Amino acid sequence: MEITDFGLGDPETMGLQLIVYQNNDRYCAKELVLLPGQTCAEHRHPPLSEINPGKQETFRCRWGEVYLYTPGRRTSRPKAKLPEKYRSHITVWHEIVLKQGDQYTIPPNTLHWFQAGKRGAVVSEFSSTSDDESDVFTDPAVKRVSD
Amino acid sequence: MEITDFGLGDPETMGLQLIVYQNNDRYCAKELVLLPGQTCAEHRHPPLSEINPGKQETFRCRWGEVYLYTPGRRTSRPKAKLPEKYRSHITVWHEIVLKQGDQYTIPPNTLHWFQAGKRGAVVSEFSSTSDDESDVFTDPAVKRVSD
Repeated sequence: MEITDFGLGDPETMGLQLIVYQNNDRYCAKELVLLPGQTCAEHRHPPLSEINPGKQETFRCRWGEVYLYTPGRRTSRPKAKLPEKYRSHITVWHEIVLKQGDQYTIPPNTLHWFQAGKRGAVVSEFSSTSDDESDVFTDPAVKRVSD
Repeated sequence: MEITDFGLGDPETMGLQLIVYQNNDRYCAKELVLLPGQTCAEHRHPPLSEINPGKQETFRCRWGEVYLYTPGRRTSRPKAKLPEKYRSHITVWHEIVLKQGDQYTIPPNTLHWFQAGKRGAVVSEFSSTSDDESDVFTDPAVKRVSD
């Protein structure tokens, strides 16, 4: 299992546990495990070549609840709570609530972030090839991959 | 949920239940549910174009036990049992046993078939794009997709 704190040193607030089942040049499958209220920082998967528009991913909530945010109409009373120091690096606030058995597909190059509900969450991620190094995070302090 | 009997009219022996979570032009994810001893008929996923060598798929056993057969050294005492009328259309007998938490990736254009153990099985399939119509079955009586 991989644990990331996005280089922020505050993993219980901004962090994610991942189990990568498969990542090859055609598809990728992971299990994401989130502690209660734990948050994955806002990012996007940019185009990588003329024939690769960037990673596309489907999140399927297997257990617990996830609040997912994407571009679109800002949700007036978002369920996710974040300290101001992290909130200032969030730019998309359209909320999608994923309960057990719900799923959502995020198009390539689309900003998104997500937070687990109060019991935490287990999320299956089905996607095109994963290349963490190319991810673009909104918060300039984030380092997804260690130097 | 989709139920297939491969057009053989004997679904409890040769059949498969599928839940397709996602199938787009880049990746596919399904849950396969097998009754005790139920078998998926031998088939391969052929090349579809100059840049598509055929569907590649990863089977991850989530529950129960699966006996998976691929090309390779014939297993002398295979765990899978099949009536002679179906066994005569099986050509690969290299056995891979998948228990809960085990997984195996089948390269494109590679013959394979599988049977659930005595309790049945739940298998997550992660793959490149799925196109059932192009599957090539060894048994000429099989019809994967209804006319």
